[in-house]
Amino acid sequence: MSQKSEYCLYYWPNLPGRGEFIRLALEYSGADYVDICRLPEKKADQTVSMQNILKDEAIFPVHFAPPILEHKGKYISQSACILHYLGSRLNLAGKSEEDQTVCLQFQLCIADLANETHNTHHPISTALYYEDQRKEAVDATTSFLTHRLDKWLSYFNKAYVLKRSHYLLGETVSYPDLSLFQAWHGLLYAFPKAMKLREGKFPQIESLVSKLLKDERLLQYWNSSRRIPFNTSGIFRYYKELDRSI
Amino acid sequence: MSQKSEYCLYYWPNLPGRGEFIRLALEYSGADYVDICRLPEKKADQTVSMQNILKDEAIFPVHFAPPILEHKGKYISQSACILHYLGSRLNLAGKSEEDQTVCLQFQLCIADLANETHNTHHPISTALYYEDQRKEAVDATTSFLTHRLDKWLSYFNKAYVLKRSHYLLGETVSYPDLSLFQAWHGLLYAFPKAMKLREGKFPQIESLVSKLLKDERLLQYWNSSRRIPFNTSGIFRYYKELDRSI
Repeated sequence: MSQKSEYCLYYWPNLPGRGEFIRLALEYSGADYVDICRLPEKKADQTVSMQNILKDEAIFPVHFAPPILEHKGKYISQSACILHYLGSRLNLAGKSEEDQTVCLQFQLCIADLANETHNTHHPISTALYYEDQRKEAVDATTSFLTHRLDKWLSYFNKAYVLKRSHYLLGETVSYPDLSLFQAWHGLLYAFPKAMKLREGKFPQIESLVSKLLKDERLLQYWNSSRRIPFNTSGIFRYYKELDRSI
Repeated sequence: MSQKSEYCLYYWPNLPGRGEFIRLALEYSGADYVDICRLPEKKADQTVSMQNILKDEAIFPVHFAPPILEHKGKYISQSACILHYLGSRLNLAGKSEEDQTVCLQFQLCIADLANETHNTHHPISTALYYEDQRKEAVDATTSFLTHRLDKWLSYFNKAYVLKRSHYLLGETVSYPDLSLFQAWHGLLYAFPKAMKLREGKFPQIESLVSKLLKDERLLQYWNSSRRIPFNTSGIFRYYKELDRSI
């Protein structure tokens, strides 16, 4: 791509998905980036450049799926890997190798939660429509809300207790803070009844979220058309029959 | 822990699981490590030290699940994060930041394949027994073998073509080579009929696997009692009804 921005992001243009974790890091830090597939060109062409990267066998390493980040003529995929790469460059991963390791480890937990959440509406196969696995989705969701949601949220909440700070690393924001912010909103969107039952139970996460919502740049992004609202694509989806008071 | 070895690994003692990706990196490089939960102590006590780390809220960051690596008094969890940390220390991640990024990205793809494989036998919930989701497991496996297995294997195979080498990075072995070696054997174990149909179709992967099996240290480990054979725990499991010629 002959873009003039420092970073180019390639991701599906109509859903927040895993691309949103990358967008939040770029937006929060005010990075110079272009969201390639959302450029105001002919709609049909929007994802052509992304599909071309995925098909291009001359690129090393080949890429399996978006999001893909382009920087200095190189491509990187896998959300946590992209964030690890961006972390040190955007001042979003603390100051030491130890901080970077903490961030990556925490991000991979958020990725696991995202996978488990996706599994609630697609337990049998990502190759099938939701409508074709509706019954199983109810079972998977019931089990997720009963056995996993509190386990994950307690874990994330605990991680913030030790530093006695709003942020995972203490004084400054790191990329997992921003991803947890997104995941929390995703859970509120997907499971309003279950999350209502949990109101006030994870005060550290709630405090992180309110603190970040006061950040001027993040708030501006949050309210802009650049941010794609949650919908029935991607990880965090709302389906009435999966919204259960458990 | 007052161990004298440089690295301590904490993982379930009776299954290869995600711990095996770490063991292979440590074993291949001849690292000085102890597999704590497999020390010949009273069986009931084997996992106590691991459970204590998971419960310890004074450790920053808290840990969600094993494998956990202890090094220089610090703990790290999440397999790909541990391998990224070990990669530069054990000479298993090339020589540059670019090499390290390629390794992490590739490892996260292997982790995705591992998750999808786990989902074939536990589509509804990890909190339920396999026996309680048997019908759904058949559906999930059918879909995995039909839509995902070739996609993943083609992807991994392609990644090795460009370097015209046995190894992902070219001349030297990196940790994703070892993890792919394990995943390939796991797939052969879990889905012998499906993998039989694919014999010879992914020559780069097969060539990597044969090459690594000629490595003296790896072969010695492979044939030792330190290596836990695949079984009906962990990621790659054999269930007759999931072994399908698809």
